[in-house]
This record gives sequence, C-alpha cells and structure tokens, in this order.
Amino acid sequence: MILILGSAGYLGSTFVNHCERNAMEFVGLSRSDVDYTNRDSLFSFLQENQPKILINAAGYTGKPNVDACESDKANCLMGNAVFPGILREVCEDLRIPWGHVSSGCIYSGRRSDGRGWTEEDPPNFSFRSPPCSFYSGTKALGEEILDGAESCFVWRLRIPFNDKASPRNYLRKLLNYEHLLEAENSISHLDEFVEKCLGCFSKEVEPGIYNMTNQGSIFTSQVTTWMKEEGVSNKQFSYFQDETDFMHRAAIAHRSNCVLDSTKAVNAGVGMRPVEEAVRESLRHMKLEVTP
Amino acid sequence: MILILGSAGYLGSTFVNHCERNAMEFVGLSRSDVDYTNRDSLFSFLQENQPKILINAAGYTGKPNVDACESDKANCLMGNAVFPGILREVCEDLRIPWGHVSSGCIYSGRRSDGRGWTEEDPPNFSFRSPPCSFYSGTKALGEEILDGAESCFVWRLRIPFNDKASPRNYLRKLLNYEHLLEAENSISHLDEFVEKCLGCFSKEVEPGIYNMTNQGSIFTSQVTTWMKEEGVSNKQFSYFQDETDFMHRAAIAHRSNCVLDSTKAVNAGVGMRPVEEAVRESLRHMKLEVTP
Repeated sequence: MILILGSAGYLGSTFVNHCERNAMEFVGLSRSDVDYTNRDSLFSFLQENQPKILINAAGYTGKPNVDACESDKANCLMGNAVFPGILREVCEDLRIPWGHVSSGCIYSGRRSDGRGWTEEDPPNFSFRSPPCSFYSGTKALGEEILDGAESCFVWRLRIPFNDKASPRNYLRKLLNYEHLLEAENSISHLDEFVEKCLGCFSKEVEPGIYNMTNQGSIFTSQVTTWMKEEGVSNKQFSYFQDETDFMHRAAIAHRSNCVLDSTKAVNAGVGMRPVEEAVRESLRHMKLEVTP
Repeated sequence: MILILGSAGYLGSTFVNHCERNAMEFVGLSRSDVDYTNRDSLFSFLQENQPKILINAAGYTGKPNVDACESDKANCLMGNAVFPGILREVCEDLRIPWGHVSSGCIYSGRRSDGRGWTEEDPPNFSFRSPPCSFYSGTKALGEEILDGAESCFVWRLRIPFNDKASPRNYLRKLLNYEHLLEAENSISHLDEFVEKCLGCFSKEVEPGIYNMTNQGSIFTSQVTTWMKEEGVSNKQFSYFQDETDFMHRAAIAHRSNCVLDSTKAVNAGVGMRPVEEAVRESLRHMKLEVTP
C-alpha cells in the first residue's frame, strides 16, 4: 500500500488520482484524519498499516500565495522543515522507503556558466544564502534535514501546472492575475511529476535528490503567447515593468525565478517531457473544457 | 502563579530555585509532565491553570555541547524556533505576559565601531548571516518568529555560569576541558540572570529584546587567572593554538564568541553586575565547596 500524506491538496490529490486511475493500492491521509506531525501518532499509524511506500505531499505553501508564510513563520517552519525530519526518523526506524516533495524555489536565476542548477549545487535562495522568502528558507532547511536520509527521495517540484481548475495551477494563475511578471522558470507538469515520482520506486531508481521539472524553461510571455495560439485566451496580458515594480505593487516576499537542470532525472529514466510540449498539451485540454 | 517551562534543566531549575527561595507562587513543568510543544495540550493547561506569567526556559541546546545539534536538526529547530512560535500564539490568545530565554550566540565578535552588539543590531551569526552553527541559526529564527509579539520578553542569555556543579556551568567546563580556546565573550551569571528576568515583570519593564549579560566581557585566560587568584585551581590550563586548531581538534560546528552591549537592560533597571565581580564571587563559592 502507498500512503499519501497531505492527500487533500492540489499536489496530494494528484497523487491520489494517479493511484486511482492506475488501480494502485493506496491510502490518502489528511492531518484532520491523523495528526501525522505528532511523532507518536505517526509511528503508531505506520506500524499498524505497514505502507510499502510513503509519499509526503504535505507541506506549508501559504494561501493565497507564498507571502502568507511571512506572517505564519512557526507553522511554515514546522510543516516544511521539522515535519520532514520527523518523517525521516520514523521511516528510518520502520524501514519504509519514502519520498518528500521539495521545491526548486530554493534557487534563483541560472548558474554562472549558463546552465540550470543541478542537484549538486547548494541552494542560492535560502536562509543560508540570502535574500530569500521565508517559504524558500524553510524548504531549503527541510532538504538540509533530509541530507543523508536512508531510502528517501527528495523530488523538487517547481511551479506546478496542468489542465485542472485549481487556483494553484500556474496556467490558471496566469489567466487570473491582473498583472504578470516576466521571468524565466523551469516548471513541472503536475500529473507527469506524480507519475515520474512514483516511477522512482517501480524503476528502482537510486534514492536522493531529483529536479523534477519539464526539460528546459519558459518565459512568462512565451506561455501567454502559447495561450493565444492554442485558443485558450485572447486576453491582453498586462505585465509589471520589472521585479522592482512587482515587489512594490504586488508582493511582500522575494520570489524565486530559476532554471533547473533535470539531466539527473532523465538519466535515471524518470525524466519529464520538454516543457513546451507539456504546456501546450495542458492548454489544449483547458480549451476543450472552456469551449462547449 | 509563575509557570516555568523546562523546569528540569540547568536554566529552568535556577528559575525554580529562585522562586522557592523568594516564596513566589510557581509551577515548574517538564515536557514529561505535559507535552507543551503540542498546541492543544498547552492551551488546555494554560486555560485551566491561568498563570500570571509564563517563563520559557525550555529549548534545545545539544548534549554534551552545541555540536550535537548538527545531527539532530529537526528537534533543534522544533525546540528553538517552532516552539516559541506556538507559545506566542497561545500566550497572545490567552493574554499571558511571558518571557523567552534566547541566546547571545546569534552574534560573533564585536561591532565594527568596537562596541558590543545591541538589541538593534541584526544577528550576524545566523542562517541569514552565515556561517553559523545549526543551534545559533535556530535561536535567531526563534527571535525572528517572536518579532512583534505582544507582552513578550526575549532575554538573551550568554554562556551561563555560577557556583553550581552542573556540567553546563561555564566555570566547571573550563576546569574540565582538556584544552581551552582563548576568546572574548560576554557571559551571564545564571542566578543573577534569573533574578533580573523576573524583575522585568515586577518593575514593569517594557517588553522586547534584552541582552542579559554581566556588564563588560572576559577573555578565557582572564577567567583562568582569576581561578588561580581565588584558589579554585592550580591547574596548568592548556590552550588551543587558535580557532582553526580548535575546530580541527575539538569541534564540528562553528562557535559564537561575541561581546554584547547590555546598556538597554541597565537603563531599564534590570542590568547585571560587572562581569569580574560576578565571576570572582562564583569562584569564591566554588572554593568553599571544594576545600573542606
């Protein structure tokens, strides 16, 4: 049985849907079912239910966005850094292979040699490498706490998107925001992300950190152009002048915009499609939904 | 009633002793009595017992020393950063005035103008200002999480000492270590620290951050000289060549050595004695204990 923690969220429910569609045996848990942030409750639950695999899709992201983390720091730190540490302890004790969904937002920009950031590069958008958002700081601490963990995958998700109506879907956000920030990013097709993460177990990939983004990167304006080309929206998108304008008018915390290198995942057989293909496919499905 | 959390430790038991000696009404709690790191348990306990004042003397320091924090990061982060945040939430909800014992170890050295660090200076030995030990990083995050907290004192303790036999007493450590590191530090006489912290409430001091160290600073070699002068030890103290030698031979994490400015506490009427006076007094009591 695959145990999915945080199964009610955008991320967790995508794991649940994948398991359902593929007739995989699974249990989805929300914190309201079992307080898995309590070590003892978690330990008892795992001992009783003996999952073959555990997926940590629970985390503190901030609603409606990452700015909310700046005013709820203790819970953010608990969810993103302390909780992975509790999971590590318990999963190591009970010898349960598991995966933690981390984030690419612990980086900013590109490497000085022009490549995307690899799994070997230390975070450059974290408490230890300021400035950063509080959210990014906690995600980087979470990875630090999992350093050297046994039978543990750390999957870096980055700006999830698909064709769903969730307010957390990047493509929906672009359609709903009044103004957009032009920036270059690697991004992750969420359903494909989930499929490849679970593939790490079936394909016996070596545990460790993996950048799980679609290959390549996008500029915001490319995506809005594709939206027009695919007939999803004829909206005249409006952009902030630059990051200073964006920070001044719309944000509290600094945002991570970054390019990740996904070569390690590709070589391990769990690489994701080129980003344009994944985005255009999602847009086509979104179009089918909106046009009757 | 004064509620003391973490009452079994070197720090907490000094609060307990002070309350006993002064016939103050108090309750000392250990985590084994009530799991106060659980928000709901804490809330119920406080609602039922209605303390007038809460003292957080609980924290994760690492045993035998701060190096232990490097291999138990999640618990260290929980105890020093998340837990103060839980306390803040609950104390604000229930309108309980309280105090949190923080640490001066979030600084290194002196200010560039030669003064000690004041409460206005941002930490320079923290995750946001690397390098730092994991311990210092979590203590600085704890202060960040308490920024703007209502009716909350943040008392910075630094290298506690007194005449007691505790292995956490700085003077005992100096006597027991095989080699010492020569460094300049502000330090806190623990009993005086406790008296002045509690004085913040009786004297209606304005809540906020206070550097609670004895006035001035000491070099390690001064203290060992005083030890000889006061007849506590005739030991030939051996020193590491320098910090590099110390790091190489004896330490995992970087250590904070720093000078704090305690003017704010002095002006508020809760200042501590000059450091030499406090150290010599402790040494005299220690001598009485060892010589029959």
